[in-house]
Amino acid sequence: MNDHDLWRELGQQLRVDSIRSSSAAGSGHPTSSMSAADLMAVLMAKYLHYDFGAADDPRNDLLIFSKGHASPLLYAIYKAAGAISDEEMLTFRKLGSRIEGHPTPVLPWVDVATGSLGQGLPISVGVAYAGKYLDRLPYRVWCLCGDSEMAEGSMWEAFESAAFHGLDNLTAIIDVNRLGQTGETMHGWDLDAYANRARAYGWHAIELDGHDVTAIDTALAEALDTTSHPTVLIARTEKGHGVAAVADKNGFHGKPLADPEAAIAELGGERDLQIKVARPEGAGKPYRFETSGELQLPAYEPGTKEATRKAYGDALVALGNARGDVIALDGEVGNSTYSEEFAQVHPDRFIQVYISEQQMVSMAVGLQVRGWRPFAATFAAFLSRAYDFVRMAAVSHANIVLTGSHAGVSIGEDGPSQMALEDLASLRAVHGSTVLYPSDPNQAAALLAQAADRKGIVFIRTTREKTPVIYPPGEPFEIGGCRIVRETDTDQVTLVGAGITLHEAMAAADLLTADGIKARVIDLYSVKPIDAETLRAAARETGAIVTVEDHFPEGGLGDAVLDVFAASDERPPIVKLAVRIMPGSATPAEQLAAAGIDGAHIADAARELVRQRAGAKA
Amino acid sequence: MNDHDLWRELGQQLRVDSIRSSSAAGSGHPTSSMSAADLMAVLMAKYLHYDFGAADDPRNDLLIFSKGHASPLLYAIYKAAGAISDEEMLTFRKLGSRIEGHPTPVLPWVDVATGSLGQGLPISVGVAYAGKYLDRLPYRVWCLCGDSEMAEGSMWEAFESAAFHGLDNLTAIIDVNRLGQTGETMHGWDLDAYANRARAYGWHAIELDGHDVTAIDTALAEALDTTSHPTVLIARTEKGHGVAAVADKNGFHGKPLADPEAAIAELGGERDLQIKVARPEGAGKPYRFETSGELQLPAYEPGTKEATRKAYGDALVALGNARGDVIALDGEVGNSTYSEEFAQVHPDRFIQVYISEQQMVSMAVGLQVRGWRPFAATFAAFLSRAYDFVRMAAVSHANIVLTGSHAGVSIGEDGPSQMALEDLASLRAVHGSTVLYPSDPNQAAALLAQAADRKGIVFIRTTREKTPVIYPPGEPFEIGGCRIVRETDTDQVTLVGAGITLHEAMAAADLLTADGIKARVIDLYSVKPIDAETLRAAARETGAIVTVEDHFPEGGLGDAVLDVFAASDERPPIVKLAVRIMPGSATPAEQLAAAGIDGAHIADAARELVRQRAGAKA
Repeated sequence: MNDHDLWRELGQQLRVDSIRSSSAAGSGHPTSSMSAADLMAVLMAKYLHYDFGAADDPRNDLLIFSKGHASPLLYAIYKAAGAISDEEMLTFRKLGSRIEGHPTPVLPWVDVATGSLGQGLPISVGVAYAGKYLDRLPYRVWCLCGDSEMAEGSMWEAFESAAFHGLDNLTAIIDVNRLGQTGETMHGWDLDAYANRARAYGWHAIELDGHDVTAIDTALAEALDTTSHPTVLIARTEKGHGVAAVADKNGFHGKPLADPEAAIAELGGERDLQIKVARPEGAGKPYRFETSGELQLPAYEPGTKEATRKAYGDALVALGNARGDVIALDGEVGNSTYSEEFAQVHPDRFIQVYISEQQMVSMAVGLQVRGWRPFAATFAAFLSRAYDFVRMAAVSHANIVLTGSHAGVSIGEDGPSQMALEDLASLRAVHGSTVLYPSDPNQAAALLAQAADRKGIVFIRTTREKTPVIYPPGEPFEIGGCRIVRETDTDQVTLVGAGITLHEAMAAADLLTADGIKARVIDLYSVKPIDAETLRAAARETGAIVTVEDHFPEGGLGDAVLDVFAASDERPPIVKLAVRIMPGSATPAEQLAAAGIDGAHIADAARELVRQRAGAKA
Repeated sequence: MNDHDLWRELGQQLRVDSIRSSSAAGSGHPTSSMSAADLMAVLMAKYLHYDFGAADDPRNDLLIFSKGHASPLLYAIYKAAGAISDEEMLTFRKLGSRIEGHPTPVLPWVDVATGSLGQGLPISVGVAYAGKYLDRLPYRVWCLCGDSEMAEGSMWEAFESAAFHGLDNLTAIIDVNRLGQTGETMHGWDLDAYANRARAYGWHAIELDGHDVTAIDTALAEALDTTSHPTVLIARTEKGHGVAAVADKNGFHGKPLADPEAAIAELGGERDLQIKVARPEGAGKPYRFETSGELQLPAYEPGTKEATRKAYGDALVALGNARGDVIALDGEVGNSTYSEEFAQVHPDRFIQVYISEQQMVSMAVGLQVRGWRPFAATFAAFLSRAYDFVRMAAVSHANIVLTGSHAGVSIGEDGPSQMALEDLASLRAVHGSTVLYPSDPNQAAALLAQAADRKGIVFIRTTREKTPVIYPPGEPFEIGGCRIVRETDTDQVTLVGAGITLHEAMAAADLLTADGIKARVIDLYSVKPIDAETLRAAARETGAIVTVEDHFPEGGLGDAVLDVFAASDERPPIVKLAVRIMPGSATPAEQLAAAGIDGAHIADAARELVRQRAGAKA
């Protein structure tokens, strides 16, 4: 069999297997797989370099399905490559199988989870960036995209970013099968529409017939030969190609075929071609940045004032000095987040992502695929722009640190558009996440150092305003811990705050002392995981809790504390202070007062709680 | 003074006033305002049609600052138009002033809040769509964009959408001042970069010198003359233009000028030009769709099964039959969300937004600016893509209904990428939001009808699976209420669920009955606002609560229940069942079991809780 015949046969096999697995599952997306089968056949048989027996070989190419719903095709490729058995392929979508409905990294050859459209290409840009500028290895990134997902702005952030960085190691393949889930896409088979856009962004664009293996071969060769620019293949294909009952017909998205046997027969029956995918060549090892290896965190003098956002910048530089794997990213607000300090000291490990938060998080996810430790920062409010990407990063088991500055009303005059007031809630809800809200710059630095080795999504919320340094440099802080900053044996109430509100809680404690009320104050810098033990002890010993957060009332610090006591034997009364208004513009102090979360309001709430309890006892 | 001289003078006045207000405030973005002053001077003096004395005149043009940080310029325009006094302008960013740091609709001429970049243009597309296809009025939408925000993919979703709908009533003006917050943008003064992209998307693009009033006049006239395509002016400008100390210099973003007096002198001093902005012409009234006016909600027979997502589709058709102001939008999954039913019956009030959730929410926000009632739907998981837009919609006081289908692990085989497991948390945290999670199709229909008149962001979570119809058609359900679906006088525990988990809770109650344990079951279909009174009564009468939700443990239904009891006198033990694993693929029943939220697990938890309490009493 000559190459072209082999590719055609392989394409048919990939179609047949896509039909078989989805029929066995009773669900899935065979027609979306069939359109791209020829493209993938030629790619895997001739262009892909991958050692399926050594998924962790750093020289391997990356094959990312941005159209994750074409998972039957991906699994058919794995079978044809000998990575999985036919039997395992047919466990598609079954309980306990790693052949999941959409690809996830439970499979060693899947680098990132896809299935939320418009994410695979942005992440591919991150991986390709790592290949070109960090690993400095010749692996290539191949990304299969759907035409429907080209409507997502994130895809064009990726186009912009890839061209800006000259990622000629990245090839996107758009499977233009014309049909979305419910009907024709905006552009149907107007390949020029995609090509014109891609070229305007600075990509090399090739239009082709996605079922013509010769054309595919030529186009992929052209991609290899293109330097300085990423290449996109814009392939006209038919959804459900090869089976007349469904080919180019609407109404068959995400459904197994009605008559799989007939369809398989029409495709020439089952095949069992085994493709020897080319192994990566050369003896390349990833580049590593030289560092001193010694971590010297910045130190802030107790009694002075500094903003935790500044500590983030300072500590990130220190971390970068000590570790070559640390990469910083910023959404063009580095003089606010203080990422700019890292950019100055370690320019070759800083990525300016401009104002594209979706691309920033995707870039971070792509970098960690290759073992780098990304630290991405912007205003906490603007991390909400990338929430779907963070959610999916958790599905990808990604290890990334996201730092959001300018949290809460305490930013002051800029007003609500710039204030993160939902971030604790949204990021606590992410599976396996860590949510830190340091109250002091030395603490922020210590926590950042730990975040660097933490699994999963770590969110660090920093404060715009300078706050008093209350801990000495070098004091250890564990993720999952908290700090009692003030206590006596006869405390009558516990005040729990973090970040800016810890300082308000301390001020409240002073006010209460003047009234003869003793208040314990807890710094809940680790909102998730939470130090349940210390909170329980405080509840036992003081009998009542006031929580205070610069955040809307739902899902934040207060709810995290409530959860500790939900079903426990002792359930103290807990008064939750939080922002319950839509703020406007004002000074930070005025904002805290208007929102009812400043020292005076905390003291009022604590006083009332102590009074009620005294009344209840009397 | 001839027109050109007037425009030049007006441009200087707008600059001077931007400097004055930001200096009075001690913060703000004068240099970002100064770059666009000439563009806005010509626009307001010759092209804008707006009656500042009648902001609610439906014939008014709309002027939207996508670069919301140029608020000093916007307020300077309002002053020049006589809408606000010089004195009020100088209250910029002060406590209690409506002259906020970034524009919000506390001012009658501001339609939507901006300040999170990349949102004003997408919303402008929604308003322009309303103008052309719904209101059918000749007002124009003028949108001032920054060059930095062109890095946001949402801007290109907007470009795509506006061109697709042929919105020739929309003019975007990009203020290419070259400098972002921290340095040069990706494209600097490469106007072609923007023009090539815009043209590739199908816009009419005009490059010009943004400080040449003649060129601006010509370009705006050309925009007026362009039909079938939206127009974008790509204007080369200088940040801080007119003041040598800051003009085209990096490092002056978001700061008042160091020497405002000198700068004002350099600009020729203060002026007090009053511009008579042209009033809108003609007697046009917005088009209204004829409807019967009678709401006939769909009815489902108790004992049968139906999915609440189907009820959404059915009820939305009914609502559209009754009310001409109802508009449906969908992110190209209308056969999953059942928006497709509305599309079939009311095609002229259905907007297919394709797979661009940011644009979908922005379009909805734009429509409600004009008084339409938008209902936008996609998978609940994918609403996370637009989280920043939802957050900002709340700042805009927007009234929109967002429906998310396919919530939770109970979707089954598709796996975690398609499962909303953070949506209750993230959407509860939005200020003033309403979060509904119907458990029955008749209930879903009844709630949707109420959502149509609800203020703020309404989120409705619907279920993929068919669930038993448990309420008769026509039964009333209030937002903020709940339903006791099962109770006796001697219940020992209360089970609280909603959506799919209500049915699991009912199954659990049956299992418990077999063990001689009586369980009350509450349908908490209104998660926010929550029926605290009924929950408190249940706690009092049964002594213990089990909550169960198809959602991660943080910030969802369980936390909403915990919050009810936080500081109340009676605080029952509350066991929170929620999804604590990262799910894979499996059948819906297997998923519920694996996540520990099916009937059997609920019964186990309730049994243990009752046992513990009996032990504690003994």
